Amino acid sequence: MAGNPSVRSEDLSSRMTRVARAVDDLLDSTLPPVVDGAEGRLFEAMRYATINGGKRMRPFLVQATAALFDVPESISLRVGVAVELIHGYSLVHDDLPCMDDDDLRRGKPACHIAYGESLAVLAGDALLPLAFEILTDPATHPDAAIRVALVSGLAQAAGARGMVGGQVLDLAAGDADMDAGEIARLERLKTGALIAFSCDAGAILGRADETERKALAGYAHDLGLAYQMADDLLDYEGDQDVVGKAVGKDAAQGKATFVAAMGADKAREQARLLAEQAAAHLDVFGDRAACLRDVAHFVVERGS
Amino acid sequence: MAGNPSVRSEDLSSRMTRVARAVDDLLDSTLPPVVDGAEGRLFEAMRYATINGGKRMRPFLVQATAALFDVPESISLRVGVAVELIHGYSLVHDDLPCMDDDDLRRGKPACHIAYGESLAVLAGDALLPLAFEILTDPATHPDAAIRVALVSGLAQAAGARGMVGGQVLDLAAGDADMDAGEIARLERLKTGALIAFSCDAGAILGRADETERKALAGYAHDLGLAYQMADDLLDYEGDQDVVGKAVGKDAAQGKATFVAAMGADKAREQARLLAEQAAAHLDVFGDRAACLRDVAHFVVERGS
Repeated sequence: MAGNPSVRSEDLSSRMTRVARAVDDLLDSTLPPVVDGAEGRLFEAMRYATINGGKRMRPFLVQATAALFDVPESISLRVGVAVELIHGYSLVHDDLPCMDDDDLRRGKPACHIAYGESLAVLAGDALLPLAFEILTDPATHPDAAIRVALVSGLAQAAGARGMVGGQVLDLAAGDADMDAGEIARLERLKTGALIAFSCDAGAILGRADETERKALAGYAHDLGLAYQMADDLLDYEGDQDVVGKAVGKDAAQGKATFVAAMGADKAREQARLLAEQAAAHLDVFGDRAACLRDVAHFVVERGS
Repeated sequence: MAGNPSVRSEDLSSRMTRVARAVDDLLDSTLPPVVDGAEGRLFEAMRYATINGGKRMRPFLVQATAALFDVPESISLRVGVAVELIHGYSLVHDDLPCMDDDDLRRGKPACHIAYGESLAVLAGDALLPLAFEILTDPATHPDAAIRVALVSGLAQAAGARGMVGGQVLDLAAGDADMDAGEIARLERLKTGALIAFSCDAGAILGRADETERKALAGYAHDLGLAYQMADDLLDYEGDQDVVGKAVGKDAAQGKATFVAAMGADKAREQARLLAEQAAAHLDVFGDRAACLRDVAHFVVERGS
């Protein structure tokens, strides 16, 4: 890798912070404003679930991949917000008592703790179509064919053969020992599908050619797995105050994780290898992809 | 109204049956086929929630309004299936213990009774994006601008300011006495939004002019209210074996219904007036709209 890693890393951090703030602003203007009455509580719960100091990794990936093709940030951020709405809804539903039963999310009470179970289900149910609604807005892209391609990709990533399928495998995993290959398949769906779409969205917006699109798909695949391994390591050895959610839960619940399947040392080594491999996919873009390469390394070295 | 009502009514019934069967077939080929393992149970639950002998009123409205503009049925049925997937998901989530807590749906155990609560939540979560995915398929319409308009309309109807907002008002209604006006507002969102989209979908597919689109919107508005009044009457005085779900629950739970707010006689009279009014909106279409006029009358006279 070219450049001074410490300067590069600082650049990445400030760029991520800038994008995260822009995502927060756009979420704020996109979500319905809080009003009096029952609907107001719904709108509040939708905001609580999404405007919450998240890292905005997925919107950042949309922005950074779209930037390879000089797509204006005003466009890529809107697509990033759509992805973030899907991510936010999935966390609300994952935390429900009948799912992972998590009381804490990003250092705060989970949505169903703060707003009750029925409003949490419904806040998720409302965030989901809002994501698609944003993508259909001409402000997102003037070309209807691009908008419809984005809706199609996001719908598939969020669906039964994507994120929801992964959550089903995850819930079933408690019943059976899984090897690293099975966990990889589960995570490719559960977290990988949305990460893959985030990178593909950049390719769609940029009208990437087949070679470029495949390169980004390869990057997203390896990045998604590395991300999940790092997540498992954070649950295994992270600091709850830094991570912002309960740690050590995976082991306590006997959950299928990469750490459980291969041990922490091997998982860390594997995550770093995957990050290298992810970065290598980007050769076709040359120096333009420096930021995305940094993201791959950041993902496995992060503390939260 | 022109024509012999008894013949007309028989025509409507066989046309509805034919469309309902076509919707079932299309749902069968659209939903993921059942496979072994945990994902197979998800796919099964998605099928259980949607291929269930429903009347397919919403797909029928899409088909019948699109037929005003000579849109091929191969197109309107696909849009109808998308609407039905949203309707099916909403019933699964509405029946959950944390929502209406209903054990019976269309004469069978509710989805969460048959598949457990977590799979029921996830089946709903997977049906939702599948609806949008179908709409983005070029097989649905060759023009991307039409496809994106359909996604936009359905997303709004399904969202916080449509169906989900209505469900929130409905859950909150247990806490307060509501008059008929407030109930009408609730139902305009909860059931009306999807009925309104079903009719608007026909207008979008048919590239209706402003007058035609407004006429269909007026029709859908009155039809939706009439439909809900008839639904409330069925719960109040219907036969459980015919209705296919528990009856008398609204009164037992002290739910806000039109029957509770205005009494059964007044609700019946009002429903019939609304059906007449709905039919009157269709004058602009002349005889072509005979089927839609019949639907309005069918909706208030049905036994299930």
